[in-house]
Amino acid sequence: MRRDEAALQALASAPEARLLLLDGIDPQLTGDGALVWGKVAQAGDAELVFLGVDAEGVGSFAAVPRPEQSHIGPASPALWAAMASIGPSDLAIYGLARSLVGWHARHRFCPRCGSPTLLGKGGWQRGCVNEVCGADHFPRTDPVVIMSVEHDGDLLLGRQPRFPVHRYSTLAGFVEPGESLEEAVAREIFEEAGIAVEDVRFIASQPWPFPSSLMLGCHARALSRELTMDESELEDVRWFSRAEVAEAMEARERGEAGVAFDAPGKHAVAWHLMDHWLKG
Amino acid sequence: MRRDEAALQALASAPEARLLLLDGIDPQLTGDGALVWGKVAQAGDAELVFLGVDAEGVGSFAAVPRPEQSHIGPASPALWAAMASIGPSDLAIYGLARSLVGWHARHRFCPRCGSPTLLGKGGWQRGCVNEVCGADHFPRTDPVVIMSVEHDGDLLLGRQPRFPVHRYSTLAGFVEPGESLEEAVAREIFEEAGIAVEDVRFIASQPWPFPSSLMLGCHARALSRELTMDESELEDVRWFSRAEVAEAMEARERGEAGVAFDAPGKHAVAWHLMDHWLKG
Repeated sequence: MRRDEAALQALASAPEARLLLLDGIDPQLTGDGALVWGKVAQAGDAELVFLGVDAEGVGSFAAVPRPEQSHIGPASPALWAAMASIGPSDLAIYGLARSLVGWHARHRFCPRCGSPTLLGKGGWQRGCVNEVCGADHFPRTDPVVIMSVEHDGDLLLGRQPRFPVHRYSTLAGFVEPGESLEEAVAREIFEEAGIAVEDVRFIASQPWPFPSSLMLGCHARALSRELTMDESELEDVRWFSRAEVAEAMEARERGEAGVAFDAPGKHAVAWHLMDHWLKG
Repeated sequence: MRRDEAALQALASAPEARLLLLDGIDPQLTGDGALVWGKVAQAGDAELVFLGVDAEGVGSFAAVPRPEQSHIGPASPALWAAMASIGPSDLAIYGLARSLVGWHARHRFCPRCGSPTLLGKGGWQRGCVNEVCGADHFPRTDPVVIMSVEHDGDLLLGRQPRFPVHRYSTLAGFVEPGESLEEAVAREIFEEAGIAVEDVRFIASQPWPFPSSLMLGCHARALSRELTMDESELEDVRWFSRAEVAEAMEARERGEAGVAFDAPGKHAVAWHLMDHWLKG
C-alpha cells in the first residue's frame, strides 16, 4: 500500500483515520499509560507517516514535527520511565512511529547534494527535490550487538554514566561496516572490557527506537577474567555471580533494585539475555 | 586510534603508509585477483579513510573519490565476477573500504540542515560545518535478513531479474524500523512468496558492501506450499528438492551451473545457508 499514493491519500482523508499525538517525537500518554490518538486533520500540512491499517481498514498515521518542534535529542529520564509502563502493543506502535518520525525530522536534506527532500511512500522514503540528483533515501536502522558474557559461572555487566543509580546491564555497541555480528561482539567486548571471547551465539532480537536500532542479543564466553575498562564509555564493569544476578532479577520483578545491582526492565532485551542465561 | 587525530596524521604521513587504489569505489586488481596498493601521497588532498594498521604498525588508508569520480551505482557484472575470485582477506579489506568510501561519497552534505560535512575520526564520522547545527553523522550499516525456507523437505529459492542466467538464491530483504529479526523474516517471505513461516532461527551473518549491509542469515519453516510471487521483486520463486539443491551445490564447487539451477557463489552467505540446510 505504501507504493499506492492514491490509496494512502484515501486512507488519510477518511474521517475515522487516526493520528498518533506526539510531543515532538516523545509520546503523549493517558493517565494509565496508553497512547493518545487524534484525527488526521489535526496534522495540518505536516508530512504524514503511514503506520498501518487496523482490522476494520482504518489507517493510522503520525506527523513529522516541524523543524522548530523537533527536539530530537536522546530520550529523557521521564521517557525511560514511561517506556517501562506502556503496554507491548502500544510500545510497538510508538517505537515504529518514533523511529520513522525521528528519521524524517533529521533528514530534511539530501546527504548527497544538500537539496531539500520530500517524504514519499507513506514515510518509508524521502526523495531529493533536485532533479539532477534525485536520490532516494530510506529510513535507517542501525544494528547493535548486546551480549551476555560468561566466565566460570559469572556474568559480565557494565554501567554507563547515564544509567539510573545502581543499574548494571549487558554491554552493547553498534555493528560497524565490514564486520559480522560475531566479530562485532568480540570487538565491543575487547574495547569495553579488554577481554577476548569465543563461542558467540545469537539469542534474540528487538527493535529499539532510540533512535532506530535493531538490537541483536548474543551470548559469548570470555577466555579470561581480568578486565580493562574503556573509561570513555563505562563507569564500571565487573563480574556478578549467578546468585547476585538471580536476586537482582527477582527484585526487578517486584519493581525493586537488587542488592548487588539494579537489573534492567523487562521491556529491554538485556533483561531477556540475563533471564536466558540464568535459565541455562 | 580513530579518536587521536595526531596519531592518524603521523600514520598517514609515514613514508610506508599504504593507499588502497580504487576506480571510483570499485577495486583495482592485479592479474591474479589481488588488491592493488599505492602510497598515501597519491591521494593528494582527498579525504582519507583509515582502514587499520598491520603487525608492523604501518597504516592503510583509502581515499574518498571526488564527486565527479563517484560513480557509485550498483555493482557491475564484472565486479560480481571479481568478488568470487578475490581471496578472503582482500575481500574483507575491500568490503570495509567500499562500505566506508561509498558512504562518504554519498554523504557530503548534512541531512539535518543541508550544509557541507567534513570527514572526521579517520572516516568513521562526518561532521556538519554549520556551527548552529553541528550534527555528527556515522557510517550506515543496513541489516538485511536472508533466509533458507523449508517445506516438507524442499527449499524455497527465488530469482531476481538482475541475477545471472539460471541463478536461484535464498530470499532476502532489508529489516525495517520497528521490527525484530524474526518479524522481518516473516514479513519478507510473506511479501515475496505469499506464505507464512514459523520457527525462525538465526544461522550466520556476513558483512556485504553493496552498499553497506549486515546480512543476517536465518532459517524458517513454511506453513504452506502454494506460492504467490511479488512480481515487482522477483522473476520466479519455487521449491527445489534436496537432490536438486545438492546437485547444484556440487556443480558450483566445480565452477559450473547445476541442472535444476545455478547456485550462488561460496563467498555469499546464501551459499552457507544452503550448505547448512543440506547438512541438516
